[in-house]
Amino acid sequence: MRQKPEVLAREIVASSRLFRVEEVQLRFSNGVERTYERLVGRGNGYGAVMIVAMADAEHALLVEEYCGGTDAYELSLPKGLIEPGEDVLAAADRELKEEAGFGARELEHLTELSLSPGYMSQKIQVVLAQGLYEERLEGDEPEPMRVERVNLRDLSSLAQHPQFSEGRALAALYLARDLLIQRGAFSL
Amino acid sequence: MRQKPEVLAREIVASSRLFRVEEVQLRFSNGVERTYERLVGRGNGYGAVMIVAMADAEHALLVEEYCGGTDAYELSLPKGLIEPGEDVLAAADRELKEEAGFGARELEHLTELSLSPGYMSQKIQVVLAQGLYEERLEGDEPEPMRVERVNLRDLSSLAQHPQFSEGRALAALYLARDLLIQRGAFSL
Repeated sequence: MRQKPEVLAREIVASSRLFRVEEVQLRFSNGVERTYERLVGRGNGYGAVMIVAMADAEHALLVEEYCGGTDAYELSLPKGLIEPGEDVLAAADRELKEEAGFGARELEHLTELSLSPGYMSQKIQVVLAQGLYEERLEGDEPEPMRVERVNLRDLSSLAQHPQFSEGRALAALYLARDLLIQRGAFSL
Repeated sequence: MRQKPEVLAREIVASSRLFRVEEVQLRFSNGVERTYERLVGRGNGYGAVMIVAMADAEHALLVEEYCGGTDAYELSLPKGLIEPGEDVLAAADRELKEEAGFGARELEHLTELSLSPGYMSQKIQVVLAQGLYEERLEGDEPEPMRVERVNLRDLSSLAQHPQFSEGRALAALYLARDLLIQRGAFSL
């Protein structure tokens, strides 16, 4: 592992209700100095969770919601912020109930993914949920989400779907598929 | 496709050298009103590109660079901003030369991935590069990047590597692998 750059100065240069932008002055080990900006926050500091929920041996649940960033209804995995004091698996189960109307008897943590490590600190925990049963919790969504299913055989087609775009959700689906294949629970 | 929410008002509430935060007041079709924040910009408005560059039939190139967002040296795919007037494949070839020291004889666009569509407008173009040859261009990197290789058979292990975290890069690697398998150029 290389010697990390030295931080010469850091300052919050912009902030809003959800975001803070920090400017960081760095000196790399070769003496080169650079000013970087990084986005910190969004959320409450307890992290976020994204759920691959298996409706049966082949299909994972997708939810459709209005996305303010792209100004479009998009399909993606259920996800949300972890609440203070809540563990990752409990947050996954709650979000699944709020967004898709299902609880899960089996929940397991797969990995942590970053969004854009070059300029964002955000990371999300990926959870695999199996043994689903119907149960809905009221969340803070402005309107109910439509729930769809995707066959794990069709992930490369999903990437071409006009309503699907989120890179980390696609990565989570592929990771879950690889794991299920390794366990002999799924085959291509 | 559902009726998109009506935009009642929008305003830039924070901005820095690289980022702008827009606050948007929305009324959903069921009458519920919400205030969203979205991150716009980062970059020059011409988009960005990420490259899966095949060093041989099985291995893709990774580059290691200091990431300001996570304050760590991370492994990921070569990537960068598209310059004004530059097409996607030319940008991919240039970034590959700058970051990894290779040009590519065959470049093809695979898909577009979003970062976090709920609150970010950013998208990145995924390009598969094959037929590599050594050629280095000077980029704007503060220090040379270390180049590594990953076997496309080992993507689920890569997700557990302490220096690898970027969700959209993992998605791009899986998509390239699926395509190469479909073409009979790779098998698991």
